[in-house]
Amino acid sequence: MSLLVVGSIAFDSIETPGGSVEEALGGSATYFSYAASFFAQPRLVGVVGRDFPAEHRRVFESRRIDLTGLVTQDGQTFRWKGRYHRDMNTRDTLELHLNVFGTFEPKLPPAYQDSTHVFLANGSPVLQGRVLDQIKSPKLVMADTMDFWIETQRDELMVLLPRLDGLLLNDSEARLLTELDNLVQAGEAIRRMGPKFVIIKKGEDGAMLFSHDGVFVVPAYPTPDVVDPTGAGDSFAGGVLGYLESDDSPPPGRLRRGMAFGTVVASLTVEDFGLARLQRTSRSEIDARLEQYRAMLSF
Amino acid sequence: MSLLVVGSIAFDSIETPGGSVEEALGGSATYFSYAASFFAQPRLVGVVGRDFPAEHRRVFESRRIDLTGLVTQDGQTFRWKGRYHRDMNTRDTLELHLNVFGTFEPKLPPAYQDSTHVFLANGSPVLQGRVLDQIKSPKLVMADTMDFWIETQRDELMVLLPRLDGLLLNDSEARLLTELDNLVQAGEAIRRMGPKFVIIKKGEDGAMLFSHDGVFVVPAYPTPDVVDPTGAGDSFAGGVLGYLESDDSPPPGRLRRGMAFGTVVASLTVEDFGLARLQRTSRSEIDARLEQYRAMLSF
Repeated sequence: MSLLVVGSIAFDSIETPGGSVEEALGGSATYFSYAASFFAQPRLVGVVGRDFPAEHRRVFESRRIDLTGLVTQDGQTFRWKGRYHRDMNTRDTLELHLNVFGTFEPKLPPAYQDSTHVFLANGSPVLQGRVLDQIKSPKLVMADTMDFWIETQRDELMVLLPRLDGLLLNDSEARLLTELDNLVQAGEAIRRMGPKFVIIKKGEDGAMLFSHDGVFVVPAYPTPDVVDPTGAGDSFAGGVLGYLESDDSPPPGRLRRGMAFGTVVASLTVEDFGLARLQRTSRSEIDARLEQYRAMLSF
Repeated sequence: MSLLVVGSIAFDSIETPGGSVEEALGGSATYFSYAASFFAQPRLVGVVGRDFPAEHRRVFESRRIDLTGLVTQDGQTFRWKGRYHRDMNTRDTLELHLNVFGTFEPKLPPAYQDSTHVFLANGSPVLQGRVLDQIKSPKLVMADTMDFWIETQRDELMVLLPRLDGLLLNDSEARLLTELDNLVQAGEAIRRMGPKFVIIKKGEDGAMLFSHDGVFVVPAYPTPDVVDPTGAGDSFAGGVLGYLESDDSPPPGRLRRGMAFGTVVASLTVEDFGLARLQRTSRSEIDARLEQYRAMLSF
């Protein structure tokens, strides 16, 4: 079993009502792989510029994340600058410089072509499809998408969906894709577009899973210390798929446990800026919070 | 053990994107008592006008709701007219005529003064306090409040809070009352204002319970058939307190099970206009949905 993620690596500059950080290591592939590394040994495909420092590389290596697929190109690394509103649920993008990521065509190293579990982080459905073409016999493919692709490449997305096991998207994107306001109806409708299961992320309100076993709902783990929501969705995905890669038991319990692990990892991510909180955690803290979460949900 | 509710009885005219209803039997005490009647035999204190028909009275009587405390006064019954937005989470009040409810001073029949479980539906904290004064030795008092009272009678509300076992309010009201954006922090802060436990309602995103046992979170039961959200909060409260009245086991499991029953009853309420869906349900359907809900939350 082997876990592959293809996505962005970025320098994030983030302002929140409580503080700010400059050029923190971020991006979808970063959060995903770091979160998944508590369960599996992810392989990362992404691109950085010549400005990407060795210390960031060591952040991945310290978690045994395989960087064979990390390409360095002439130019600058992807940069994003954003500001969160007071409610921490909405944010404005202040600056976005795709830099080397803007023209990146992911090409898998030969050793990655046997990957069994694949996460196609948010990106063009055309490129997501081209990544899939390079994988011999994937067992579980999960992809993220966003409003931009739904609006500009809907046809291409509809071609991709039947190739997926799971699609991740947030509540407003699910409504946009289906033109349905009720999320239960929207989730079922997206499943009919092709993916075997659909996960609708609702931020601080948790997530919903739609599969052939019906609907499964999880609240977010209620942390009082939301410092920076950046990366919550991708580390949720990393927890889900990392856990699934590590668990061979039959469904449906597996997918639900994956959702719970994803929820717990995401709740840690938001407790500090960037990766800082995940860098201070351990599998045993994750397991302990999972048990707290389980107790919190039982009645 | 005996359960008392003091609140409004109204004729609701409701427009939703999917349909409308004219002068349906509604109001906080109506939804609360009907929901609670699946678990207990509620006593109702409220006021109606001369226009209140015998058929509505029979709706309560058919559920063995005690109407000794239902006062009929010269004038018209409370009327509310509202229109839900497309997302079904927000609504506009188009018309509001308090009529006889506007000058109502609840006076408990002597037989009600020994009530053990009390729900003070949304109303002025001064009047809520005066109701409490009339009860000899309540075991569990729960109150609802809203933004209007937080803004106009904050001092009076602060006097009431230490007299409560539980306070119910929605997420925006919790933020308004505490000036805290994080709901975990807000819930704990409200508990420090006096009530033993606090329930923050988040509509289609479920509810949070804060008690000395910590935080307990429940998602809403994911129904695909949201027809009319009116009364969801009050029937949730009716499920919670009705169940608590019927269960003598020690906390904390009791309060959590109450939250789960409240969630299930509320999910039924919203599946049709007014009381229509509750009028078609039964305790056995509620119990069956509770087991579905439990399975949905387990991992």
